[in-house]
Amino acid sequence: MAKDKPTKLKARMPRGLADRGPAELGSTRAMLETIRKVYELYGFEALETPFIEYTDALGKFLPDQDRPNEGVFSFQDDDEQWLSLRYDLTAPLARHVAENFDRLAKPFRSYRAGWVFRNEKPGPGRFRQFMQFDADTVGAPTVAADAEICMMAADTLEALGVKRGDYVIKVNNRKVLDGVLGSIGQVASDDIARRLSVLRAIDKLDKFGIEGVRQLLGEGRRDESGDFTKGSGISEKRIDGILSFLSLSENCSKMSPEQQSRHPLFDLMADYFEADSVGAEGVAELREINTLVRAAGYGAERISVETSVVRGLEYYTGPVFEAELTFEVKDEKGRPVRFGSVGGGGRYDGLVGRFRSEPVPATGFSIGVSRLASALSYLKKADAAPDYGPVVIVVMDRDQTAHYMGLVATLRAAGIRAEMYLGNPKNLGNQFKYADRRNSPCVVIQGSDERAAGQVQIKDLIEGAKAAAAITDNAEWRESRPAQFACGEAELVAKVRELLDHHGVPHGAALG
Amino acid sequence: MAKDKPTKLKARMPRGLADRGPAELGSTRAMLETIRKVYELYGFEALETPFIEYTDALGKFLPDQDRPNEGVFSFQDDDEQWLSLRYDLTAPLARHVAENFDRLAKPFRSYRAGWVFRNEKPGPGRFRQFMQFDADTVGAPTVAADAEICMMAADTLEALGVKRGDYVIKVNNRKVLDGVLGSIGQVASDDIARRLSVLRAIDKLDKFGIEGVRQLLGEGRRDESGDFTKGSGISEKRIDGILSFLSLSENCSKMSPEQQSRHPLFDLMADYFEADSVGAEGVAELREINTLVRAAGYGAERISVETSVVRGLEYYTGPVFEAELTFEVKDEKGRPVRFGSVGGGGRYDGLVGRFRSEPVPATGFSIGVSRLASALSYLKKADAAPDYGPVVIVVMDRDQTAHYMGLVATLRAAGIRAEMYLGNPKNLGNQFKYADRRNSPCVVIQGSDERAAGQVQIKDLIEGAKAAAAITDNAEWRESRPAQFACGEAELVAKVRELLDHHGVPHGAALG
Repeated sequence: MAKDKPTKLKARMPRGLADRGPAELGSTRAMLETIRKVYELYGFEALETPFIEYTDALGKFLPDQDRPNEGVFSFQDDDEQWLSLRYDLTAPLARHVAENFDRLAKPFRSYRAGWVFRNEKPGPGRFRQFMQFDADTVGAPTVAADAEICMMAADTLEALGVKRGDYVIKVNNRKVLDGVLGSIGQVASDDIARRLSVLRAIDKLDKFGIEGVRQLLGEGRRDESGDFTKGSGISEKRIDGILSFLSLSENCSKMSPEQQSRHPLFDLMADYFEADSVGAEGVAELREINTLVRAAGYGAERISVETSVVRGLEYYTGPVFEAELTFEVKDEKGRPVRFGSVGGGGRYDGLVGRFRSEPVPATGFSIGVSRLASALSYLKKADAAPDYGPVVIVVMDRDQTAHYMGLVATLRAAGIRAEMYLGNPKNLGNQFKYADRRNSPCVVIQGSDERAAGQVQIKDLIEGAKAAAAITDNAEWRESRPAQFACGEAELVAKVRELLDHHGVPHGAALG
Repeated sequence: MAKDKPTKLKARMPRGLADRGPAELGSTRAMLETIRKVYELYGFEALETPFIEYTDALGKFLPDQDRPNEGVFSFQDDDEQWLSLRYDLTAPLARHVAENFDRLAKPFRSYRAGWVFRNEKPGPGRFRQFMQFDADTVGAPTVAADAEICMMAADTLEALGVKRGDYVIKVNNRKVLDGVLGSIGQVASDDIARRLSVLRAIDKLDKFGIEGVRQLLGEGRRDESGDFTKGSGISEKRIDGILSFLSLSENCSKMSPEQQSRHPLFDLMADYFEADSVGAEGVAELREINTLVRAAGYGAERISVETSVVRGLEYYTGPVFEAELTFEVKDEKGRPVRFGSVGGGGRYDGLVGRFRSEPVPATGFSIGVSRLASALSYLKKADAAPDYGPVVIVVMDRDQTAHYMGLVATLRAAGIRAEMYLGNPKNLGNQFKYADRRNSPCVVIQGSDERAAGQVQIKDLIEGAKAAAAITDNAEWRESRPAQFACGEAELVAKVRELLDHHGVPHGAALG
């Protein structure tokens, strides 16, 4: 037992944070590269902003407080001004555009990938540090920019290996939702808390179904565990109006083609609103997005207008998007559920305007990198991390270290991952154990006999593991020394290459 | 003039932070990929730790304070524990290894690239957020691990395009410096402030020369501006001893080969110390590192023992390294100076031990990514960022948006960066100005005449810029419409490809 003195520090991480190893980093790197290539194809350019911003630039001061919102990590600079870690990549973009407005070519089209921080209660799959990958067009007033973002989201998922039919980009419009809320006459447009409570209730449609949302919009909902969520307090009749609107696109998709052509979705939606109302404007925008994406060859199985989509963020002002994976996975109780959202976005015409006297139209899309990565690994589409570790040269004679390191240098110069065992070489068993734990394809052994003969032994650990499975007896093992062979030192590179090729282990130019 | 209302937020960044655009991000990305490949070739594996750690795990509490050291950004968690942004990648590695000690294959060989944060006064080229790229071997007691790190540093610089002769990896040993300090008998090993003052004085050898260091070790030094730096207060005679030791390797390099073979550097160094002293141990380690790197084929022009090298960090316990670029650049006053250090490291056997009852040997190397990137761009070796922007389809008729977006989709499907102009299309001049600012290779134009004929016009902006340089007259310009041609819509992809190939603009698989 280790005798830890009480003065020793405990090695621990703050909760909601995580270390990441080679497999996760390798597949994430491949994924980010693919996204980057699609975004560049669309004409977006790379941008990175710092992790730290003035708290007020992020909009995270509560209206009546001189301390920042608790949802962000904040600290005071030595001039007493409040700084915060960025909590998304959109607020820093707005600051960047406003700060460099005259210098930037507009529309300004940028993509940004990076870590963001939330000072919130962590939970399973909920971290206080996570990665987003955003693309935004700032200075584009028309919905052509929104339509383009939807097409790019679809192309990105396909480039990552998500098959057509396994995803859908859902589109709705905040103006339409505002119109619905306005038409029920009970939610004032400046009653932000009430509006958010209604939007959040609607957002639960996938999770709780029509009846659950009906309860959340009304008196409230008690879940299976007995917990009660207070409702928005909307009257029953108004709730019917909301729910019938939310069901429009689903009902429409169940109609026959002949019925659909007689009652197109956009006409059915428009029927809810007065002409020239904000709701009607929203419907017209959705109709135009639909026309644009269809003309570019994107069918309804890829990009689809859905009356039930809500994005929680208050700053959206027009079209909103949600990228949803539609294939089924098992939930924590083993029941099949859709994988769900891996990204979303929308138009936010007011965010840059906080810094400027004129409004600046903008629209964007954000991918939740970790969530999408776990979806891809579920689909087994993520590039596997390098499966095999380095070739290990074991240290038989301590005074031959320089010679062993020369062998390693020879292998590396040939593009073969290799290392000499750098731990205490006394116990040979530990050296082999190390090679096993690193998943090395082979080890190279040179004792005094081999050295005298100008040779090395190569032990094929991949073949050896297969052979070992077939051997049941220790004596037989020692006898056969499975998959071990000798070769001249000058042949080392050629023989190791042969072995790696035989097992399909990448090396040389194919490495990395 | 814009009428900014007084309530508008000012868009600004905290000092010492920076936004980064496509050129810098592109060259940095290429650089990180190259480093990563070399490190993987050496058998190191990827690791990432979070940006936030417990302050005590970083060792950044001052001994007599309950608030963290001012050099780090710190904030309290909701359980009142102090958290800090990581200020390097070594302290978090020590925490990671200690926390996962039994699970990790040892020696544990990892590389980590990422941003670190210093709450210090920023200045020219000094940021409060900057990037490091580290590699460390934890659990390797012998200097073979240190020798390997030096070879890897040399290989990395060459892989990045730094020519042999333009860099040197300098090696020294903290034990040797301790021996020198011990032998002068005036600096107690636990007088940390005094030790650091001496080490810092020695570290200024490159900058101030022998005489400057003599003053800093003695009474103090007044610089050209009249500012006075208090010295370490070492007696003149002791200073002579230190300086003669520091000059050993330089003097040795000036000796003839015949003299060098009679008085090898390591024998001259050893003469300074009693046998079995810590200084003698340090010399023996340097001698072994020298033997190992020479045996692996690394000459003195690549890896060289230098008695004058000091690394400021107090936690080093053995060999220390410094990667120095030796080519000359101009300093702020236009005088030629060596580019200088782009990375360094050393052995730190005590850092993981802070968490554990037994000591854990470790050695590592850290590259200053931004500093190395600026060196590479100086050498014009950094991969240039994509020079050209996307092909721009201009909007001649607003009601043809869907058709234009179809043309864009066709180009993108062929792997050609393209976008439709998404700003207000009213002013055609603005659309061309936009294409110029994006450095587009060409624009695609289709008015009603072209559409009726099933054609598009392609305007070659690269050729056009060349032709424009030869045209002096506006009328002549309008007449010749330089570098513009028509083609059928069906030929669009083929013609644009031809144009891009003609100008060497990458597209398709060659993109990104």
